[in-house]
Amino acid sequence: MSGVEPHRLSLNTATVREQWNLAQCIEGCARHGFGGIAPWRDKLHEMGVTDAARAIREAGLQVSGLCRGGWFTESGVLDQAVIDDNRRAVDEAAELNAECLVMVVGGLSKNSRDLPAAWSLVEEGLAETLSYARKAGVKIAIEPLHPMYAADRACVNTLGHALDICDRLGDGIGCAVDVYHVWWDPQLEAQLTRAGKDRIMAFHICDWLVPTRDLLTDRGMMGDGVIDIPRLRGLAEANGFDGLNEVEIFSELDWWRKDADVVMETIAARGKSHC
Amino acid sequence: MSGVEPHRLSLNTATVREQWNLAQCIEGCARHGFGGIAPWRDKLHEMGVTDAARAIREAGLQVSGLCRGGWFTESGVLDQAVIDDNRRAVDEAAELNAECLVMVVGGLSKNSRDLPAAWSLVEEGLAETLSYARKAGVKIAIEPLHPMYAADRACVNTLGHALDICDRLGDGIGCAVDVYHVWWDPQLEAQLTRAGKDRIMAFHICDWLVPTRDLLTDRGMMGDGVIDIPRLRGLAEANGFDGLNEVEIFSELDWWRKDADVVMETIAARGKSHC
Repeated sequence: MSGVEPHRLSLNTATVREQWNLAQCIEGCARHGFGGIAPWRDKLHEMGVTDAARAIREAGLQVSGLCRGGWFTESGVLDQAVIDDNRRAVDEAAELNAECLVMVVGGLSKNSRDLPAAWSLVEEGLAETLSYARKAGVKIAIEPLHPMYAADRACVNTLGHALDICDRLGDGIGCAVDVYHVWWDPQLEAQLTRAGKDRIMAFHICDWLVPTRDLLTDRGMMGDGVIDIPRLRGLAEANGFDGLNEVEIFSELDWWRKDADVVMETIAARGKSHC
Repeated sequence: MSGVEPHRLSLNTATVREQWNLAQCIEGCARHGFGGIAPWRDKLHEMGVTDAARAIREAGLQVSGLCRGGWFTESGVLDQAVIDDNRRAVDEAAELNAECLVMVVGGLSKNSRDLPAAWSLVEEGLAETLSYARKAGVKIAIEPLHPMYAADRACVNTLGHALDICDRLGDGIGCAVDVYHVWWDPQLEAQLTRAGKDRIMAFHICDWLVPTRDLLTDRGMMGDGVIDIPRLRGLAEANGFDGLNEVEIFSELDWWRKDADVVMETIAARGKSHC
């Protein structure tokens, strides 16, 4: 593993969400030689999907994913508003020609402790969205989140669980593998092999800091933490993944406070030295 | 499931570590009608093992576990100081007639990102300690910790991984199942069945708060969070576990600041209503 060149990197817009709007992110990716971008939908809606799609195309960027669909569990039933929002997300992913629509599936339902019920609801929501996405030619990528988010963000927390769901739902659905969420898992190597090229739809990078000061917004720049990113990237690529390395860093105390061009330069440097 | 009566509860001394020494914990457990206690070794050494063993026996308390051995990984090799400390812990567990010696195995070695190396070191340390513990008649309980502790406290983070190790090491080693660490795991039910009576050596309870404000010291009182404790206790008991329900709550912002008798009364009440 000899590191990642900028043209093999994609910027997830969450990484500079406090500094740049989507137009600035697109321009910044082009200027820093990144190969792609992964917009969050709030920034996408701000800019407008059609304008964003055109600007991204003109900048020569791939869209490594659209963040995010999902959030199926909150009300305790799969209601029409959630179904509709996921269909809109599919349409947006299609218009952007995104590699996949990333799914953060939702945690426990409000006032509920029933985890198996949340799992069922998630699978129901994914099945519904998948059937719509297949017609639109959009791939659905379940992102298993770290188990510390099981209650309030996503109750699918291992690649193994995500792939069990994929097995049941069939073609067109796979996984977004974020090293932050899965690095600890003793089953990771086996599950990446099980996933294979078709179901590893995205590969996200950042780092796990020690200590981690906040459960959500204290993720690290590659190289500042303990994740062996080259090893994990090697496993993904050995199983056929050949997409971009998408950098997604939530960092209230550090990177969100820095000049965005410094963040981009640092990502480019660390891609070579620590990925 | 009709709740847990005080005589089926055990107090892990970490729950009132800021308020009471071990003598006070023993007296408090007896006064509140608890069935057992699980000392941490710092408090045990402060009181003296022989005195503590006698006081616990005279109070009519079981020792649901001794916390803790392990911590095998820090230096990157299994050094003699760590081996010796684990042997002392075994001796202490024997003198206390503890149900098990609980193992917090350690995270990544210092300045290392090599998780598979840490796993190997842990298994080596457990094997060494187990061979000593068998002669002493002490059972070794691996406590899989929540994956958010993989880097800095324990790199065994699922019951499945712990049981894989148990399978390789043989008799006399099992698991301490803490609902806080395992509640999110989609494999939990299957792995508890796999573990069975002989390898579920301890059952720890507290709750997962939403939001969780600190990775280590913001655990909740039973009923204040989202864990379905009755369901998990039911699974453990359906697989033969008949030991005490050990209450271990790290709570810098809340329970460590309250009068310890209020904490004990609350535990007793929540045992009935939320466990």
